Amino acid sequence: MTEGEFIEALRRLPLHPGACGLADDAAWLDAHERLVLTKDLIVEGVHYLATDPPDDVAWKLVAVNLSDLAAKGATPVGLMLGYPLGGDAWDHAFLAGLEAALRAFDVPLLGGDTVHAAAGPRTLSLTAIGSGDTARRRSAARLGDALWVTGTIGDAGAGLAIARGAPGRDALLARYRRPVPRLEEGAALAAVADAMMDVSDGLLIDAARMAAASRLACTIDLGAVPLSDALREYAGDGRSARMAAVTAGDDYELLAALPPDDIPPVPATRIGILTAGSGLTLMHDGEAVPLPPRLGFEHGG
Amino acid sequence: MTEGEFIEALRRLPLHPGACGLADDAAWLDAHERLVLTKDLIVEGVHYLATDPPDDVAWKLVAVNLSDLAAKGATPVGLMLGYPLGGDAWDHAFLAGLEAALRAFDVPLLGGDTVHAAAGPRTLSLTAIGSGDTARRRSAARLGDALWVTGTIGDAGAGLAIARGAPGRDALLARYRRPVPRLEEGAALAAVADAMMDVSDGLLIDAARMAAASRLACTIDLGAVPLSDALREYAGDGRSARMAAVTAGDDYELLAALPPDDIPPVPATRIGILTAGSGLTLMHDGEAVPLPPRLGFEHGG
Repeated sequence: MTEGEFIEALRRLPLHPGACGLADDAAWLDAHERLVLTKDLIVEGVHYLATDPPDDVAWKLVAVNLSDLAAKGATPVGLMLGYPLGGDAWDHAFLAGLEAALRAFDVPLLGGDTVHAAAGPRTLSLTAIGSGDTARRRSAARLGDALWVTGTIGDAGAGLAIARGAPGRDALLARYRRPVPRLEEGAALAAVADAMMDVSDGLLIDAARMAAASRLACTIDLGAVPLSDALREYAGDGRSARMAAVTAGDDYELLAALPPDDIPPVPATRIGILTAGSGLTLMHDGEAVPLPPRLGFEHGG
Repeated sequence: MTEGEFIEALRRLPLHPGACGLADDAAWLDAHERLVLTKDLIVEGVHYLATDPPDDVAWKLVAVNLSDLAAKGATPVGLMLGYPLGGDAWDHAFLAGLEAALRAFDVPLLGGDTVHAAAGPRTLSLTAIGSGDTARRRSAARLGDALWVTGTIGDAGAGLAIARGAPGRDALLARYRRPVPRLEEGAALAAVADAMMDVSDGLLIDAARMAAASRLACTIDLGAVPLSDALREYAGDGRSARMAAVTAGDDYELLAALPPDDIPPVPATRIGILTAGSGLTLMHDGEAVPLPPRLGFEHGG
């Protein structure tokens, strides 16, 4: 598609009033509250596979950004898309997935930029704007807080293996290709959590980051980490399966630190505790187990 | 550099308080007015040359986004950077250019994302947020308005040729590599202009876009288009030189439509008029001249 055709197609998607019909170089936003801004890029071959369907890539681009808003308890206001034109079939499929995500998460396009792509792997960019930042920072966890996580962990990691050709169930593949940001859960947890973040690079590395930002140590009970039935069926429930789950990325669940006696207002599982000191301790069946060489996914490391 | 090293280096640049020291996935902004948001990507081999120095690429990324804010008369509030790590030397030079631009235009970093780049040409992304959108849209030009442009046109086009190896003066090369967004001029013009936009893809194509968005025709006097002494020395002052100037991109001057008897509050040159109808007419020495086959730069066309 040409830039003009692509923008014309974008105009048929849900648009924010401040997008001015995408007829201008800038959008406006009348803001009378605290806004939350986040920006996540996804790169072909790094954050998604070249073989992933373009509609799923669009969905993921939206979902990973909204997941950062969810972790702040914010409500999505609008999205700024940075899109390199990728050929007619790719562009059309991308638009279909983008529309599906905008409608599923009830967020309009606010603006963006469409460029003629250079050869080579695609880099897609999105900036998400939300309102009502009620959550504390990830650095605000307190000594003695319990660590809770929503949903189940490791499904997307298994889904990635399936996307790469391993046999496995569609439900796991869908968790990798079509993650769902925990917007409602985030809004509810933000009111009670001392600290919150989304689990994007792996449960262990993200928990370690929250603890480090809060100048605390963290102990996680590997056996308490919630696994889905689909994942147990796929990988079993042994230590190595659990270790794979907690070091895989793309879960987009929420990790929240709550005062020790608090019960979260949404379904979640207690998986650990924040203690004095620094570093991460992993327990399983009552004994400390060695940390894996790699706690999760780190860019450029 | 690793992602951690790059973010540590970013922390030494001017940061917005809402950036929270870049320790979180999201930034906050307490907004109590109209915000302007814009997002421009630049792609290696499309918007800049692979041989352009990385510090100039960083400067250009900031400048082209701030130019869109300037066209809305907005004051920069903060920037969200999307950066693919590019190797130590490139990353360090990029950071130096980024710092120079942030300081020159007095705008802090608000957040962003750093990713491990795939092989191939770089795509760099920036979202700029400004406050005080006082300008009318580009579609608000009125019948009989005069078209004015700030600065001089065509210098960056010559600078691009010089960057590609043609002999020529550093002043022209600098206009290509280190454009300066017209922030002060934009704020002053926004108070009086019926419509305004920046000249990024070429004077003719951008003027035609303003006219089309406003459902008007546009006549431009080629002889009135302001050329710098450096460009005259480089390319002469004939029709073909002027035609090259008005179809070259990267000027980042402001194009404003003002009521016919108004004089702009900043230095600018009157280059044309908006009339009834549609389309673009080009005049030179009192006669209509054929339009060039290409009015400017269009992506994916």
